[in-house]
Amino acid sequence: MTLRGYVSNQEQLRSGEVSPRDYLEETLKRIAELDGELKAFVVVNSEGARRAADESAKRWAAGEQLSAIDGMPVAIKDIIETADMPTGQGSPMWEGTDWKRDSASVHALREAGAVILGKTTTTEFASKHPWHDTKNPHDPARTPGGSSSGTAAAVGAGMVPVGLATQLLGSTLRPASFCGAVGFKPSVGAVNRSGSHDHYSQSCQGSIGATLADTWTVLRAIADRAGGDPGYPGLAGDVDFSRRTKPVKLAVLETGGWSFTSEGARQAFDAVKQQLRDQGVEVVGRAEDPALEAVETAVADAHALTVAIVAWEGRWPVNTYSDIDAGQLSLDARDRLKTAEAMTRQEYAELLTRRAAARSTYESAAANYDAVITLAACGAAPVGLESTGNVAMNVTASLLGCPAVSIPVLTDEGLPLGLQVMGRTDRDAELFEVVTWIAGEALGRPDLVG
Amino acid sequence: MTLRGYVSNQEQLRSGEVSPRDYLEETLKRIAELDGELKAFVVVNSEGARRAADESAKRWAAGEQLSAIDGMPVAIKDIIETADMPTGQGSPMWEGTDWKRDSASVHALREAGAVILGKTTTTEFASKHPWHDTKNPHDPARTPGGSSSGTAAAVGAGMVPVGLATQLLGSTLRPASFCGAVGFKPSVGAVNRSGSHDHYSQSCQGSIGATLADTWTVLRAIADRAGGDPGYPGLAGDVDFSRRTKPVKLAVLETGGWSFTSEGARQAFDAVKQQLRDQGVEVVGRAEDPALEAVETAVADAHALTVAIVAWEGRWPVNTYSDIDAGQLSLDARDRLKTAEAMTRQEYAELLTRRAAARSTYESAAANYDAVITLAACGAAPVGLESTGNVAMNVTASLLGCPAVSIPVLTDEGLPLGLQVMGRTDRDAELFEVVTWIAGEALGRPDLVG
Repeated sequence: MTLRGYVSNQEQLRSGEVSPRDYLEETLKRIAELDGELKAFVVVNSEGARRAADESAKRWAAGEQLSAIDGMPVAIKDIIETADMPTGQGSPMWEGTDWKRDSASVHALREAGAVILGKTTTTEFASKHPWHDTKNPHDPARTPGGSSSGTAAAVGAGMVPVGLATQLLGSTLRPASFCGAVGFKPSVGAVNRSGSHDHYSQSCQGSIGATLADTWTVLRAIADRAGGDPGYPGLAGDVDFSRRTKPVKLAVLETGGWSFTSEGARQAFDAVKQQLRDQGVEVVGRAEDPALEAVETAVADAHALTVAIVAWEGRWPVNTYSDIDAGQLSLDARDRLKTAEAMTRQEYAELLTRRAAARSTYESAAANYDAVITLAACGAAPVGLESTGNVAMNVTASLLGCPAVSIPVLTDEGLPLGLQVMGRTDRDAELFEVVTWIAGEALGRPDLVG
Repeated sequence: MTLRGYVSNQEQLRSGEVSPRDYLEETLKRIAELDGELKAFVVVNSEGARRAADESAKRWAAGEQLSAIDGMPVAIKDIIETADMPTGQGSPMWEGTDWKRDSASVHALREAGAVILGKTTTTEFASKHPWHDTKNPHDPARTPGGSSSGTAAAVGAGMVPVGLATQLLGSTLRPASFCGAVGFKPSVGAVNRSGSHDHYSQSCQGSIGATLADTWTVLRAIADRAGGDPGYPGLAGDVDFSRRTKPVKLAVLETGGWSFTSEGARQAFDAVKQQLRDQGVEVVGRAEDPALEAVETAVADAHALTVAIVAWEGRWPVNTYSDIDAGQLSLDARDRLKTAEAMTRQEYAELLTRRAAARSTYESAAANYDAVITLAACGAAPVGLESTGNVAMNVTASLLGCPAVSIPVLTDEGLPLGLQVMGRTDRDAELFEVVTWIAGEALGRPDLVG
């Protein structure tokens, strides 16, 4: 049995060779071995998880499993509410607070038979400040990235097959890249965020997993039971994971983040481009297509634009938290509040107009390609735990609201680095077909497919 | 001094003739006199309100008021979080629960200097079941309407000038109509709902007030400090309330609710149409304009469509609340959950497509008119407290996401009934200019303007 891939264990689960309880015990063993140092978990509910796994085992034995993820241990980012564990939001102010509810997504996971294992660390309010000292499983001197620090570290260390994450700027793909995991930020609105403490217009509930199959299937199972955000149709497409599509033409986007990328990262990216070309895929950049150059122009200031949008939208709840006790907020949170309070509704309305224009430019250009590739981070995870690294390569997909996947197929400084593949909004399944081909066929990494 | 209109007391407040503390004391006196029977309030925070009013009085005396609503007592529907009072959501399960936070709107009100007076009753989860026995101030044997029962009753009884409400199906305009108050449901997304326990895609935070000025200004003051829902520009237009515009052409919509209206209501509506025509306004109905007939067709099943959308979107949190203790949920809530669990994501996606089509049909037709008029309720408030009345005349504006105002200028059975005036989405200010003319000029009710 391997923890790298639950969905791919379906055959053993069906045959009884592996039971969900066995799988869980392996998970708990690795957590016991590794998490003292890595600090990926805020809390682990071993007893609750064992009960859920035993129930699942009965269903598998009876051939009555509830879904493809029945029995799958799932880690939950500690910004998302769970009825059986507190939700601390990565903040000393809320640490240990029992909200008494499951989020829409966690409830959907339980309905699908998943085993809710524990809560994983997040930076404060899924933003910047890391109150927890979560470490990178590939080098404990380095950050795991953030804000989904714990989920990425837990998956990267092989403690769990998959976990829930969120992304507002770069909180899913960057930590996935740093920790050598698959990261998936779906189309904006595709997964119901109700009961998660991230209410921003660009924020998405995503997943970080060991394989593409686990990462996809966990969100699809949620969408069938909880839908997308209210007003959105929810993540669509096959639940099953057999399709792979060879792309004819891939676009390359550098984005405004390119100047922050390391030389090693750029070299690794160039090598992948060459591998794809060698297999007959056309790889087109800004110099060859004016429509892509237009996208590059539209997203050149994606970081500044995103930061401004997020500042206004984040005025609440930081203002009411500041009333409770400003001393328990990070300097970063207090600074964001000051920025927000100096902004006007009109300024924000103009930012939305600019974002809508960038989205429109991107969707037009992306329609001519099977997918868009770029780097998932500026380079390897930086040394130090006081910062979770640069979001520069992640803000573009966040701003555009399009789906994006990171696959750990590159290296920089001998450490993992993700290839980011972006798709068209609300066509997440098509993106996965292409990514699956890239990982499984073009780059010879069937282990990442699952 | 009159509690019917705070914004219109600006001159007395500036001159010191009336202080915010005087105004508040009048409010508290009427609550003490009336609320024992009416039960509009779940809790009143007299001491907190007095402190806030005294602070406001100092600002008025110094000419340093923070906004046009500085010192205004505001009642808050008990679905909206307040840091200084519990938020019970109209549910025995959550009664007395301290969420510790102000909602985005309540925080904005405090920033604007408003006096947060108390929490007003809501039906369970701002849906149907009335756990509280709030009474109609015009006839205690009748319902005040719902779900914003307490806010409407408190304003209708002259206990407060204004209060926050919400509307998903008909929760602002119907109770405003029944209680003889002005009701305003803004364009979808126009007022930030963060920290309010209504997360539906059609739901809006609105206001119920004694005058159009109070009703408008309280929401505009919020929008300048908290914006709209994340991703929406927020309620725009003049904060000040001097403009009125005589409409050239008004459309009449019957909607699918017409067959449920009382004869008295229809007669009252016909009389208003005649008054408007007498003043030279063209009043056009479905028989004269095929575009309006197309809208009538598109909204004929607005009720069923809305109920289905709401069922799916309401699966959470009722499912996690049901896990806590299904016995503390109304039968109505449990039934809605069953309906939701029998629906699929695909069915919901189709409902969204139908809603988008109805919105598009409406916006095209409405562009040819200065506003759209209809009834705000099927008739006078019905006798009995076990139901909050029929939403049939309210679901259309809710489904369409357009702004709608109810003004208490009609009567049925000798009791108040509202004229509903609907506008074009994100043009709320234009709607108010027309409504102000209708109330103040055409129908001779300057007292409703403020």
